[in-house]
Amino acid sequence: MLKVKVYVTLRESVLDPQGSAVQGSLHSMGYSEVADVRVGKYLELTLEKSDRDQDVIIREMCEKLLANTVIEDFRYEVEEVVAK
Amino acid sequence: MLKVKVYVTLRESVLDPQGSAVQGSLHSMGYSEVADVRVGKYLELTLEKSDRDQDVIIREMCEKLLANTVIEDFRYEVEEVVAK
Repeated sequence: MLKVKVYVTLRESVLDPQGSAVQGSLHSMGYSEVADVRVGKYLELTLEKSDRDQDVIIREMCEKLLANTVIEDFRYEVEEVVAK
Repeated sequence: MLKVKVYVTLRESVLDPQGSAVQGSLHSMGYSEVADVRVGKYLELTLEKSDRDQDVIIREMCEKLLANTVIEDFRYEVEEVVAK
């Protein structure tokens, strides 16, 4: 079994209204140190081993479903899970 | 300046209908290897340095706004940003 951690973030050039809203809330709560907030997604996938190349299928899943590559970037990390 | 990466995930015991929906979509796209999906949030905060303790204010911001600690866990990483 593999645990795959996928991070999906908006591209730098894309405005992030959700991040601006969070920043505004933090400011009004007194956290004036916060200069910027960007909000993204974090997904944890558990994959069974198969004879397909894991990097190919993870990349395909990200490009086809998990991230909108027009406005988002993604990166991922793969960890081996030791069966209990 | 500090860059803080915050990861907010649903607690293990909490059902994740969004993750189940993503898993269902991946299955119907032919990715039968996917045994489980959990969806969380990923936030990048940029903080200006202040004389308040960074760990204290990051933890406060997470507990008060960024995560719902009844059903979510959070963890964070802090990186120093070198000014350009």
